[in-house]
Amino acid sequence: MNFHDFSTLAATARLHDLAADPYDLTRPAALNPGRIGACRSSACGFDLLFATQRLDDRVLDALQDLADEAGLVDQFLAMKRGAVLNRIQSHESENRQVLHTACRDIFSSIPLSPEATCQAKEQLAALRRFLEDLEQGRIVNHRGESFTTMVQVGIGGSDLGPRALYLALKRYRLPGRSARFLSNVDPDDAAAVLSDLDLSRTLFNVVSKSGSTLETLTNERLVRSALERAGLDPARHLVSVTGAGSPMDDPRRYRASFHMFDYIGGRYSATSMVGGVTLGFALGYDGFVEILRGAHDMDTAAEERDIRVNAPLLMALIGIWNHNFLGHVTLAVLPYSQALLRFPAHLQQCDMESNGKSVTRGGHPVSYLTGPVVWGEPGTNGQHAFYQLLHQGATVVPVEFIGFRQSQYGEDLVVNGTTSQEKLVANMLAQSLGLARGRNHENPNKCFAGNRPNSVLIADRLTPFSMGSLLALYENKIAFQGFAWNINSFDQEGVQLGKILAGRLLEQLAAEKEGTPGPLTGESAELNLLRAAGCIG
Amino acid sequence: MNFHDFSTLAATARLHDLAADPYDLTRPAALNPGRIGACRSSACGFDLLFATQRLDDRVLDALQDLADEAGLVDQFLAMKRGAVLNRIQSHESENRQVLHTACRDIFSSIPLSPEATCQAKEQLAALRRFLEDLEQGRIVNHRGESFTTMVQVGIGGSDLGPRALYLALKRYRLPGRSARFLSNVDPDDAAAVLSDLDLSRTLFNVVSKSGSTLETLTNERLVRSALERAGLDPARHLVSVTGAGSPMDDPRRYRASFHMFDYIGGRYSATSMVGGVTLGFALGYDGFVEILRGAHDMDTAAEERDIRVNAPLLMALIGIWNHNFLGHVTLAVLPYSQALLRFPAHLQQCDMESNGKSVTRGGHPVSYLTGPVVWGEPGTNGQHAFYQLLHQGATVVPVEFIGFRQSQYGEDLVVNGTTSQEKLVANMLAQSLGLARGRNHENPNKCFAGNRPNSVLIADRLTPFSMGSLLALYENKIAFQGFAWNINSFDQEGVQLGKILAGRLLEQLAAEKEGTPGPLTGESAELNLLRAAGCIG
Repeated sequence: MNFHDFSTLAATARLHDLAADPYDLTRPAALNPGRIGACRSSACGFDLLFATQRLDDRVLDALQDLADEAGLVDQFLAMKRGAVLNRIQSHESENRQVLHTACRDIFSSIPLSPEATCQAKEQLAALRRFLEDLEQGRIVNHRGESFTTMVQVGIGGSDLGPRALYLALKRYRLPGRSARFLSNVDPDDAAAVLSDLDLSRTLFNVVSKSGSTLETLTNERLVRSALERAGLDPARHLVSVTGAGSPMDDPRRYRASFHMFDYIGGRYSATSMVGGVTLGFALGYDGFVEILRGAHDMDTAAEERDIRVNAPLLMALIGIWNHNFLGHVTLAVLPYSQALLRFPAHLQQCDMESNGKSVTRGGHPVSYLTGPVVWGEPGTNGQHAFYQLLHQGATVVPVEFIGFRQSQYGEDLVVNGTTSQEKLVANMLAQSLGLARGRNHENPNKCFAGNRPNSVLIADRLTPFSMGSLLALYENKIAFQGFAWNINSFDQEGVQLGKILAGRLLEQLAAEKEGTPGPLTGESAELNLLRAAGCIG
Repeated sequence: MNFHDFSTLAATARLHDLAADPYDLTRPAALNPGRIGACRSSACGFDLLFATQRLDDRVLDALQDLADEAGLVDQFLAMKRGAVLNRIQSHESENRQVLHTACRDIFSSIPLSPEATCQAKEQLAALRRFLEDLEQGRIVNHRGESFTTMVQVGIGGSDLGPRALYLALKRYRLPGRSARFLSNVDPDDAAAVLSDLDLSRTLFNVVSKSGSTLETLTNERLVRSALERAGLDPARHLVSVTGAGSPMDDPRRYRASFHMFDYIGGRYSATSMVGGVTLGFALGYDGFVEILRGAHDMDTAAEERDIRVNAPLLMALIGIWNHNFLGHVTLAVLPYSQALLRFPAHLQQCDMESNGKSVTRGGHPVSYLTGPVVWGEPGTNGQHAFYQLLHQGATVVPVEFIGFRQSQYGEDLVVNGTTSQEKLVANMLAQSLGLARGRNHENPNKCFAGNRPNSVLIADRLTPFSMGSLLALYENKIAFQGFAWNINSFDQEGVQLGKILAGRLLEQLAAEKEGTPGPLTGESAELNLLRAAGCIG
C-alpha cells in the first residue's frame, strides 16, 4: 500500500486556498433553512449536524478529494482486513496488525479478518461461561455468597475506555452488581477505593497485556495484601485479562484469565476482553454484546466512500479542516449527558496517544500539525465554567457537542412547560448557534465575534448500542485522521522516555535509603532535581 | 488607578526580542546543578521548580519589569483593599469590588477590607453554631437521628471549587460524614445521585447567589419531590447559601440560610460559605478554617514585589512568557495526586472564565492572546493516556505539575525498594526532565525534541492547609495574569448569549407541545436547528 504525504496532496493545496476565506457564519441568513437541512449526516441512529462549521460545498468537495487521494477508506478497509499498519517504514517499530474492529466483526457471516474474529469469539464464549457461573452460583465467595462488585485494576487503555463506558451505562446495571476502577500508582487511590468496599463480595479484575505494568502490579499487590489482612484468599477474588503466556496468565493466582492480543492497542481495547469482563459483569453478557453490535454497525458505516454519508470520516475531515487549515490546535468534546462524564478523558487518550506524533510512516518529520489537544466536560456544567472562553476568548476552540433526545432514567420534571432533558438539548443547540453566529452589541464587552466552528452529534438515547456506536465513531474518526496525516496512530513511543527516567530516579531513591551509591552522579540533572524537590537530602 | 495596555509596555517589546532565542533546554549541561538550585521559589510550604522552563535571568528580569511597569502587585493590593476592579471603563459593567481574599483575611489584626472581613466572620460564626447544633444533636431528622450526608446542589462556581476541595480532602472527613454534589441539569445526574442515598439522613445544601439559577432550581425541585415521595418534610432537609434577600433566603423553606455577597464571584467563592457549609459539614469547622488559613498565607505571599519570591506572580509571568511570547495557547495542569482529580476542572472554570476575554478594561479589543485553554488529569494516569502528545506531538503544551512528598492515607507498600508515593513523585520529576531535555535517537520515531516548558510545584502533603494555599496560589496567579493583560477577570458576559438563545428554544418547545405558536419563525436558524436535531416534527 502506498501512502501519500499530507502536505503534497493536490487537495491540501486547494484547501489552503479555500481557507483564506472560510464560510462566514455571522452573515445574515448564513444559517438559512436550506443549509441547516443539507449539512446533516446520519449513521447508526446518530445525526451529525454541521451547518455551524465554517465550510461550504467547495470545501466539502475538496475534503472528498483529500479522502480519495489519500485513500482513507482503502486504508480503513486494509486495517480491518489485517494489514500491518502499526509500523514505520525502514525503522524498527511494532510491526503489528491493527484489529480492534475484529472484536465486533462477530455479527458478519464472513468476517474481514477471520482469525482475529475467531479469537474474539473464543474469548466471548469464555466470558459467557464465566458470567453464567457467577449467575448460577458456581463462582461464589468462601461463604457461598455471590460477588456484587468488580474492581478493574488497570491503567491507561486498560482503564479509561472501560471506565467511561461503565459510567455511561451504569443505568443498565444488573440488580445488585456494580463496578469500580483502580488505576493510579498514587497509594491514596487504592486506599480510598478499598476502604469503601465489602472485600468478601468483591472480585478484582487485573488488566495488563504484558503482565508487567508497574502501576497495575503495585495496585495488585495492595489489593492482595488487603484481601489477606481481611482473612480472604486472593486466588479466590482475582481474575485477569492479559496476553496468553504472560506472568498474569496463571490459574494458581487468578480464578479466571481472559486473553488480549498484540493486534489490539490499549486505547482501542474497550470492546475486547479489556472492557468485556467488567462490563459483562456489570451489564450482563447481552449488555456487552449490544455495545459490540453498536460498534460493529459504525465500523460498517465507516466503509462508505462518500464523505457526506460516512459520519466518522466526515468528522475526521472537518477536524482536519479546522486544525490544519483554519489553524485551531485544540478540540473540545462536550457531551450534554452527565453519564458521559469520562468519555472526554477516554478520547483524550484515544486521540492524543494515537495522533500526537511528529514522524510520518515514512520516518520523516511532519511539516504540518497532527493530532489536536482534546479536552471537555459535560454540559450544562461547562456552560457555567469555561464557556466564557469558548465565546469570547482570544483563542478559537472548535467544539463537538454530543446529546440525546431522551434521558436514561426517565425521571424528569416539567418546569415552565419543558422537561430537564429538553432543557439539556435546548442548551446544547443554543450554544452551537451562539458560537457560530455571535452577536453584535454597542457594548464591546457584550459582543460575540461568532464564527466559532462546532458540530452537534445527537441520538435518541444513551444505551449500550448507541454507546458502542459512539465509541467506534470516534475510534474510526481518529484512525482516518492518522491515515490522512500519514502517521502511525497505533504506537506510543512517546511514553518510553519518562519510564526510563523514572526508573533511574527510583533506583537512586532506593539506593539512598540503603546508603549505597546510586546510578546518578552529582552533576546529573536527575539527582539535582530530586534534591531541589526535597526528595533526598 | 491607571491601567497599562499590555502591548505597549516597554517590557513587552523586550520580551518579544528575547523570545526569538529562548533558553535551549536540550543543550548539554542546560540543566546544570546551579540552574536547578537557582530556579526555585517557595511559598507556604510549596516549592516551585522552574529550571525546566525556557527562560534565563534576562527573561526573568524583563518579567520583573513587566510586573513593575504594569503595577501587578499594586493592583493586587488594590483588589484586596476593595477597589472596584470588576468593571469596563465607559461601558455598562458589573462595577463591583473583588473581595474573595477578605473571606480569609480573618486572621489579620487589621484586615485590608474590614467590612467584608467582618461579614465573612459573621457567616463563619453562623456556620460554627450550625455545625455545633448538628454535632450536639439539636439539628436531627424526624426520627431524632443525625445527618450523615450533605448534598451540595449548585453549578459552576457553586459546584466545581467545593467539589474539587471535598474530593481533595475526603481523607480528613469527620467519622460518619460525607458529601455529594449535584449540578447538571441532566435529569440522569439527579436520578443517579438520589438513588444512592438514605434520604432520611441527608441534608441538601442549595447554593445560588441570585436564587434563580435554572439548573439549581430544577434540581432543587427534583430533590423536594424525592423527599416528599419518601414521606419526608423538605423544609427539614434543605439549607441554602444565597444572597441576602434572594428568594432562597427564606426560613420557611430552608432549615438555615447562609449568605454570599456580590463582591465575591462564583469561581472565587470556594472559601466563602459556598464552600464553607459543605466542607464544614464534612471536615468540621476547624478543617474549613485550616483551608482559610492556607489561603490567607498565600494571599500574603502574593504581596511580594520581587517576582523571584512571589510564587503566584512568578507562575503568572511564566505563563505569560509561554503564552504570549513563545506562542503556546494551552496549559496542562497535571497533579500527581489522585485526590486532586477535579482540581483541573475547577481551574478550567477559574482560569478560562476569568481570562477568556477579548476586550480590555478600557473597552478596546485586545491585540494579543489572553487566557489559555487549561486542561489536565492526574498522573500517573495521564502518562498512560495523552502524554504521547506532550512528548512527541506537533503542538507544544506547557505543563504545570503538582505533587506531594507524602501520601494522605499513609497506606503504602515498598516494591523494589521504593514506596508508591516515591514512585509517584519520581514519575513526575522524570516527566518534567524528559519534556525539557528530550532525547536524540537514530530511530526518528524514538526521538524526543525536548524544549517542552514545564514547572513542578511540590509540597509535603495534601492537607486542608496546603489545599487552601494551592487554591489561593492559582486564584492569585489568574488575577495577576488578568491584570497584566488589562482585562476584567471578574465578569462573565460570555455566558449570557447562550442563556438567551436557550430560553428562546425552550419557549418554542413548550409552545409546540401546547400546540400554540412559539416565538420562532420558519426561517429562523433556531427553529430549523430544532427540526434538524429531531426535537420537533
